[in-house]
Amino acid sequence: MSAPDLAPVRRLAIIGCGLMGGSFALALRAAGAVRHTVGVARSERARAQALALGVVDQACADPAMAAADADVVLLAVPVAATEATLRTLAPALAPDALVMDVGSTKADVVAAARAALGQRLAQFVPAHPIAGKEKAGVEHASAALYRGCQVVLTPLPDTHPELLARAQALWAATGARVRTMTPEAHDSALAAVSHLPHLVAFAAVRAIAEQPQGAQMLALAGPGFRDFTRIAASDATVWRDILHANATQVRAQAQALRAALDAFDAALDDPARLHEMIEDASRVRRAWTPAGAPDSP
Amino acid sequence: MSAPDLAPVRRLAIIGCGLMGGSFALALRAAGAVRHTVGVARSERARAQALALGVVDQACADPAMAAADADVVLLAVPVAATEATLRTLAPALAPDALVMDVGSTKADVVAAARAALGQRLAQFVPAHPIAGKEKAGVEHASAALYRGCQVVLTPLPDTHPELLARAQALWAATGARVRTMTPEAHDSALAAVSHLPHLVAFAAVRAIAEQPQGAQMLALAGPGFRDFTRIAASDATVWRDILHANATQVRAQAQALRAALDAFDAALDDPARLHEMIEDASRVRRAWTPAGAPDSP
Repeated sequence: MSAPDLAPVRRLAIIGCGLMGGSFALALRAAGAVRHTVGVARSERARAQALALGVVDQACADPAMAAADADVVLLAVPVAATEATLRTLAPALAPDALVMDVGSTKADVVAAARAALGQRLAQFVPAHPIAGKEKAGVEHASAALYRGCQVVLTPLPDTHPELLARAQALWAATGARVRTMTPEAHDSALAAVSHLPHLVAFAAVRAIAEQPQGAQMLALAGPGFRDFTRIAASDATVWRDILHANATQVRAQAQALRAALDAFDAALDDPARLHEMIEDASRVRRAWTPAGAPDSP
Repeated sequence: MSAPDLAPVRRLAIIGCGLMGGSFALALRAAGAVRHTVGVARSERARAQALALGVVDQACADPAMAAADADVVLLAVPVAATEATLRTLAPALAPDALVMDVGSTKADVVAAARAALGQRLAQFVPAHPIAGKEKAGVEHASAALYRGCQVVLTPLPDTHPELLARAQALWAATGARVRTMTPEAHDSALAAVSHLPHLVAFAAVRAIAEQPQGAQMLALAGPGFRDFTRIAASDATVWRDILHANATQVRAQAQALRAALDAFDAALDDPARLHEMIEDASRVRRAWTPAGAPDSP
């Protein structure tokens, strides 16, 4: 699993001992790619649990204390806490330490890092592991979580090339397939294939529920509706944060969807054209296979 | 299975020996609710197959010949052929025979029946069994196809009450749950929970495929996108016909969806309101369970 040229991490700091951070620690340990892991959690219970499960070797409540002397720091806190946590860390960071996050949106994280890290920005490699988050908590952490998943890194022009290479090697060691793109391309792509579909699923349920006959309509819905709206049952806090953070790209993708809906609307009275457009979409969809990732924001 | 007051069908005519018609014949036979079944198919091969599988007792190519002396006639042909087939049948129909269809849209079928049946319109009970159609052909016909499914009947003001009651008893004998509503309420509900979701899934795939970065976007899509767009892989001919036939109600539901999308768009900059709206939709979706029907248009 471990890349041949991967020097083991001497001291890994996991800021946030949950599913994502815990799984990263376990995967690197399973790959022989880390010597010592320190985990940060605010609650004593979470620290005790991470220690008891063997996810971390050491636990504390202070991000700066954990990051001091670490050569790799993984930020795995709610996106809204990114900037404040990075500010706390920054003074303690070793000058050659690699810092990464695991957030589902990247332009906002880059803006937070730019504001919080100052001249240490070159040490930050924004990362989005597209992996299952539907069961939160360190008790679900697994060395296998990232295996076969895609991880997108969105380095900045000023990112240290050696630290980017190290980030790529570490994620590869977890079993993930790693690709790099700009933060904007990432946020645009995720808006198209994940964020907007969630918004549309929420809106589709709302549009029906608000009609006087909504309950009767829902009583007739079958498996097509079930799958189309499955993601509408997602967690409101997670999706509020993602949709709010990526509002610009979500709006751009919503505009593209509206244009496609307009084209289909115009074709409803033109069966030949309608057939052609459906066949085009159906062919694209049949040719597509999902990225090997479990469900995830 | 058989309703206690159900007199067996003396002669059942299935116009169209496919999955839907064949399964209706098999289900009624299994329930002891039919004595003799005659099937109509245009190709000799289809007639031979229906006979060989024991789905029908007799097969012929002429709808009028099959319908003559039948007390129940089930039309199970492509919706586009409804009016022409009813015209062929009408002169041969016994004055107390029950005629039903199995189409996915009802207002267009009612219009076709009104045009084709004239004063025999009172004998027609429009029916939509919401049951699996993804595997076409009489070889997939099964006595169990309609078990637990919903069947919507959309009687007209002039429908004979005894024939409506007979239609209800026959569908109940197949194991289906039967409900009645107006053709317009049916078409509106199906537009909301099935037809528009298909249109949106087609449009969502198209909107991405048409972007320069479309392929890269699709490469990042995971299980959420897979389920949201599963119905975009549906058959183009089937969905061209349904969407074209129900264009008015599909447009009305598309308008409701656009309004809901507008409301979400406005809330993207208002996290509290956004959370509330997502939570509302998520609650509705979690409380909903699909109608007990396999996949179907």
